[in-house]
Amino acid sequence: MKYTIALLAGDGIGPEVVNQAVKALQAVGDTFGHEFEFEEAVVGAIAIDQTGDPLPEATLDVCKRSNAVLFGAIGDPKYDNNPDAKVRPEQGLLKLRKELGLFTNIRPVKAYETLLDKSPLKKDIIEGTDMVIYRELTGGIYFGEKKLSEDGTVASDLCEYSEAEIERIAHLAFKAARTRKKKVTLVDKANVLESSRLWRRVVTTIAKSYEDVALDFLFVDNAAMQMILNPSQFDVILTENMFGDIISDEGSVIGGSIGLLASASVGNDVAMFEPIHGSFPQGAGKDIANPIASVLSAAMLLAHLGLHEEAATVNKAVERAIEKQIVTSDLNKNSEYGTNSVGDYIANTIANID
Amino acid sequence: MKYTIALLAGDGIGPEVVNQAVKALQAVGDTFGHEFEFEEAVVGAIAIDQTGDPLPEATLDVCKRSNAVLFGAIGDPKYDNNPDAKVRPEQGLLKLRKELGLFTNIRPVKAYETLLDKSPLKKDIIEGTDMVIYRELTGGIYFGEKKLSEDGTVASDLCEYSEAEIERIAHLAFKAARTRKKKVTLVDKANVLESSRLWRRVVTTIAKSYEDVALDFLFVDNAAMQMILNPSQFDVILTENMFGDIISDEGSVIGGSIGLLASASVGNDVAMFEPIHGSFPQGAGKDIANPIASVLSAAMLLAHLGLHEEAATVNKAVERAIEKQIVTSDLNKNSEYGTNSVGDYIANTIANID
Ligand SMILES: [Mg+2]
Ligand SMILES: [Mg+2]
Repeated sequence: MKYTIALLAGDGIGPEVVNQAVKALQAVGDTFGHEFEFEEAVVGAIAIDQTGDPLPEATLDVCKRSNAVLFGAIGDPKYDNNPDAKVRPEQGLLKLRKELGLFTNIRPVKAYETLLDKSPLKKDIIEGTDMVIYRELTGGIYFGEKKLSEDGTVASDLCEYSEAEIERIAHLAFKAARTRKKKVTLVDKANVLESSRLWRRVVTTIAKSYEDVALDFLFVDNAAMQMILNPSQFDVILTENMFGDIISDEGSVIGGSIGLLASASVGNDVAMFEPIHGSFPQGAGKDIANPIASVLSAAMLLAHLGLHEEAATVNKAVERAIEKQIVTSDLNKNSEYGTNSVGDYIANTIANID
Repeated sequence: MKYTIALLAGDGIGPEVVNQAVKALQAVGDTFGHEFEFEEAVVGAIAIDQTGDPLPEATLDVCKRSNAVLFGAIGDPKYDNNPDAKVRPEQGLLKLRKELGLFTNIRPVKAYETLLDKSPLKKDIIEGTDMVIYRELTGGIYFGEKKLSEDGTVASDLCEYSEAEIERIAHLAFKAARTRKKKVTLVDKANVLESSRLWRRVVTTIAKSYEDVALDFLFVDNAAMQMILNPSQFDVILTENMFGDIISDEGSVIGGSIGLLASASVGNDVAMFEPIHGSFPQGAGKDIANPIASVLSAAMLLAHLGLHEEAATVNKAVERAIEKQIVTSDLNKNSEYGTNSVGDYIANTIANID
């Protein structure tokens, strides 16, 4: 089949790592008989430099007419260090999420056997961890009404959720659990918050349509502990926006390498796939950036398009690279492999997988 | 000097561990020439059983006329497992906090050298950790207005803070930092929340009166990562109620033993001191509960009364017990010491400290 993929490589190391993901997708295309057509568009600091807008209309058009968006990274120190900058690269990402209606952020956390020594957690604790976090991305306190009293002495933020907002992400989480270990853990604070009690009611009702999936509940403060004490207990974590921000960032460090972590942002239509690492501007153009998170983002893209065997092949090729230590120096300080050679190894492995 | 201490031992293992703290305080009294007068009162499930009220008026009176409250633990399965129970042990604690105006919860997190192997974190990461978390306890989203739409499809919670609420806890945190490593880290989400921006403004202004203390800032999602990646960077963490709930619970597990963790709840007048562990009803009456958190709570009580040398002596006696492995079986599974013998050893060590 033919698929159009929007490539929004962005800033810093974005273009280099996206290139490796493209190699992987091309290898998948050749091997499985698909055609991927890539359409490049600018976003972030490079878009500001070229057009004055971190998300030009033309870029948005490219995304909207594609089957999926492969995103690199955005951010540049010349904007970060300028408090007067009115236009910021990050605005491009926020606007893109909004324009595409991406209401769910999906973050897998997986402990790779050969990298267990890189985790800050002891080996027996991190071993076997393989979870995915479903975070609501467009509601809750980050988007609720903000108030500051006229004299500036009282400030407030409103955390609000509707049934419909909870239902749509809950269905995604339960469907994901069906393809995995068949467990959903709702993280909330239902002993205190009214909005959490609504989450619990709605999710409990939806769970009845997924009888093959077990549902349990965890208060967010306890979840913050369990991520450290026993992360391998989790399969799919489902949670609201702010709790998801905290718990998924906590989850991102337990594996020991942020350079391995992919993510998806999903809505009703076109979805977007990106590594969670930033633009790492100091590393740009040096062939040192770890391309694995970007390649794994491409694997999530394939799975999202229903190409599950293809996605599994990419994941297997990444695992092979890690096993054989064909990795960048952030994973093995004695390694002499650069961004490109790791990308080439993975693409070759996809083409010749057994 | 003479001090009156209210003893609210509560339920489960509460009475046993509070007894050991009393022994430690009596040893301090004998050694340093103070007189501690203890007045016992009921709270929690035992108070419900005796009076129908988890915080009887008589108990509140005892607290109000004392110099400080030493609290054990509350909670009993016969109430936890009964969803129809209208009166719950936990209500006693919430009411007590409210009646005494306890607006700050203080939780130290310390890695003991001889217990590093009990931590879920690798030794080189947890080593040297010695922080204290100042959590606002009576404001924010847990106490803000809750709403549920009439049709039950939209729910909300309001997170609100006033300048005055932030100022009073901020002063406590800066004063604490002065006696420690002279650093305060404000944990907030000021890039998104209006209430966090108020925290940042107020705390930045107050910092000017404490020129010897450094102030830095951390977003809560990053703080959740840093607690795992590099906990020894922290001295005093200052934060609002919900962030403090999450971060202090995360902090409570990194040391590896919840049986060592003391806490204080402080307001304008009488303060309260308690271990963070619960009532552990299955362990009650078996002489197996770890009394150290309760003894360290007594040390916090002494420091709060201005008896710093006395507090340091109790801490030193606890460290000696841990070094010599005079500990309960949760810390050393081959240990034959029970609650009472650990308490006796600590009291004796206080009396004979070099
Ligand atoms: Mg975050
Ligand atoms: Mg808690």
